[in-house]
Amino acid sequence: MANADCVSVRVFSLNCWGIHYLSKHCSQRYQMIGEMLCKEQHDIVLLQEVWSEKDFLYLKAKLASTHPHSHYFKSGVIGSGLAIFAKHRIHDTFLYRYSLNGYPYMAHHGDWFGGKAVGMAILNIAGLTANVYVTHLHAEYSREKDSYLSHRVVQAWELQQFIRHTSTGADVVIVGGDLNMHPQDLGCRLLMSYTGLKDSYIETAKFDGCENGMTLIADNLFISKNELIPFEKGIRIDYILFKGSSTTKIYCDFMSTTKGSVPGHPLPYSDHEALTAELRLESHIPAQAGSDKTQDTPAEKLAELVDTLTEARTEVKVGLHCAERMRYTAARTGVMGLALLVLELAIAAVPCFALGAEQPFPRISFYLLAALCFAILLTTFLLYIFYTMELKSLQGAEDQMRLAVGSLQEKLRGFPVAQPHNAPQRSPEGQQPSALDPEE
Amino acid sequence: MANADCVSVRVFSLNCWGIHYLSKHCSQRYQMIGEMLCKEQHDIVLLQEVWSEKDFLYLKAKLASTHPHSHYFKSGVIGSGLAIFAKHRIHDTFLYRYSLNGYPYMAHHGDWFGGKAVGMAILNIAGLTANVYVTHLHAEYSREKDSYLSHRVVQAWELQQFIRHTSTGADVVIVGGDLNMHPQDLGCRLLMSYTGLKDSYIETAKFDGCENGMTLIADNLFISKNELIPFEKGIRIDYILFKGSSTTKIYCDFMSTTKGSVPGHPLPYSDHEALTAELRLESHIPAQAGSDKTQDTPAEKLAELVDTLTEARTEVKVGLHCAERMRYTAARTGVMGLALLVLELAIAAVPCFALGAEQPFPRISFYLLAALCFAILLTTFLLYIFYTMELKSLQGAEDQMRLAVGSLQEKLRGFPVAQPHNAPQRSPEGQQPSALDPEE
Repeated sequence: MANADCVSVRVFSLNCWGIHYLSKHCSQRYQMIGEMLCKEQHDIVLLQEVWSEKDFLYLKAKLASTHPHSHYFKSGVIGSGLAIFAKHRIHDTFLYRYSLNGYPYMAHHGDWFGGKAVGMAILNIAGLTANVYVTHLHAEYSREKDSYLSHRVVQAWELQQFIRHTSTGADVVIVGGDLNMHPQDLGCRLLMSYTGLKDSYIETAKFDGCENGMTLIADNLFISKNELIPFEKGIRIDYILFKGSSTTKIYCDFMSTTKGSVPGHPLPYSDHEALTAELRLESHIPAQAGSDKTQDTPAEKLAELVDTLTEARTEVKVGLHCAERMRYTAARTGVMGLALLVLELAIAAVPCFALGAEQPFPRISFYLLAALCFAILLTTFLLYIFYTMELKSLQGAEDQMRLAVGSLQEKLRGFPVAQPHNAPQRSPEGQQPSALDPEE
Repeated sequence: MANADCVSVRVFSLNCWGIHYLSKHCSQRYQMIGEMLCKEQHDIVLLQEVWSEKDFLYLKAKLASTHPHSHYFKSGVIGSGLAIFAKHRIHDTFLYRYSLNGYPYMAHHGDWFGGKAVGMAILNIAGLTANVYVTHLHAEYSREKDSYLSHRVVQAWELQQFIRHTSTGADVVIVGGDLNMHPQDLGCRLLMSYTGLKDSYIETAKFDGCENGMTLIADNLFISKNELIPFEKGIRIDYILFKGSSTTKIYCDFMSTTKGSVPGHPLPYSDHEALTAELRLESHIPAQAGSDKTQDTPAEKLAELVDTLTEARTEVKVGLHCAERMRYTAARTGVMGLALLVLELAIAAVPCFALGAEQPFPRISFYLLAALCFAILLTTFLLYIFYTMELKSLQGAEDQMRLAVGSLQEKLRGFPVAQPHNAPQRSPEGQQPSALDPEE
């Protein structure tokens, strides 16, 4: 990062395969990932399938000194699994949930519960506005009979729409994630040709990694070879994409992938390979003012906005508590229904509970009670899922608002002293995390 | 529309209250709305609560000559109810579904089933890029005990995010819709202060309409006065908002609302009042190139994009047929379950069906069969709802793709003859609808 005209940005992307109890060696792998990220100090880290918020918080604590800025995108029942860590301040975030994402009753595929989405974070990198996107599309379970193809095509369509419409003001666009599509697949072509994004594997000047840039390889010990047929060696489905703008050119100097097991460790980081791209940004023309409207806003307006936002956060928190209470009630009612069912079955099955009566239960009552228990269980289960989704959405909004308040307060602290630049949005960002870090 | 530097744009917004069998005089009112829109010839018509696609198609046919461009935004089970009609070509559309929108079990409030969202359409008005948004937020059923407040605040938050992030490249932004919020409500303040949008009722030079710009008034014969307490005369919850850019200034010269019943008709158009704003756009500086990236794309790339899009449409159509088949199967299975239940009840209730047997049904079988029927009915009902939502999303994507193909073909037809301008995105739009209109 010598000067504002030529900036180097190292981007990392990995599908962490973080399904506790189902993914193998989950905690051990997160530990490895955390240590590697600490050591490598990429500028931007884009993670997918971080299904548990605890794992995100573990990484956040681990990376507190190297990557002071982070965001976890919440969506769906257990999703979205998307996380971003950055050396540079995250000014704004936005999440778009894909309208289609598999079927809830295909529970063994699990995609529906993941609440797949694309997360956007707006970063300031050496005075340049970088729109960074992280996403994960619906998995392909069968190449021959892909019953989710239309869903994935619609996701690719919505992804390109989201990127195209939200990145107009950006100097650079960086996209990382597991697209679950081969480079020549329809969705990939749709995304690339419509947005003008470039594939770092294709564009890179130098490459070190798996053959053909593959990211799901037979040599990874978590991959069963049968899954890859007819692609014996592996497939390329994870990407780091980028594009510049009229003001900024972007190049990929070097790209690498991991190659299965990690040297010095018995395990790979994940069932996917990790991607690293070294991008070089060349800023050519001083950019136009007005890409961030709040930068032009007078201090009193900003202060008013902070007040409004704080009020909104309070309302959302009230809603959060309410949803938590409702979810708790649903869970408690469900447990009571289950207990009732178990008790009934015990009375019916074990004669000693019947206290000597010949016919412990009239049959009609037995079946009616059982039906009632099942109805309670089903209803409370559905309600529990629904309230969980509501909670995630409320938490997600609250997180974004907290981040926005932080960013606004940062700007307010800069009034009027730190406004000496002609082009306000080009003010160089401090490398040190702010003492009054509002992320907590 | 004298010249490109000063353009007048008339915008119309109405919540149509189009719930067949529940809203009063629905068909008659749509006829009135259609006739009025034909006569008034607004540049942009933003409609909410057009719940039935048939009504949209009725209006589309009626307005074919005055408003050749239109889009119906599909979302949720029966929503989103949002529609746009325009004199000017719609180049692009995008839909954002709010992450929270009430509860499915609050069926009498119905908001959840509406799939509330914000729709965006990018129009070219006399060479200016206009981002037009139409939206409808969750209703407020009780001012004192508003259990949906947190949902509405999150919707307002997501609305401002969506507008802010997608409108960076726009010369003007126009928002119309039923926000279900009073002007001083938290969500309204959040939206206005964060986006910098201005309220046409506040900004207008001249106003003709209800007192205080109210849009839900006691004088409307569809409104029961009890609903409005403690606001005896009415409330203002529908808005037309706007903002310009560094290149374009925007003013509101005149604004009007309807005042309950329509002169010469026995009925009002809706339970809400309709809004009309006459906006004046003043373009000051020639805008920067690059707001629409596809404008800079060479013809072969555009043709390739059209091919990819056509392929994507085919895939989505395959998915559509599949979802239709699944929904049909669910409906048929549900009907069979219902028939079985009716038959069983008939046998049990009417002895003559029992063909003379003393005990027509063993009791256990009776209850088991009834439970099975209920389980089938519930499951097929949930599946039917789910497939309906899937269908809507697929249809929505297909609609947007068709529109995009049309817009790209339009550009392709212009190669290389109609590219004589220095600033490509400023090419004046033809007033006549294209002979090869791709909207069908």
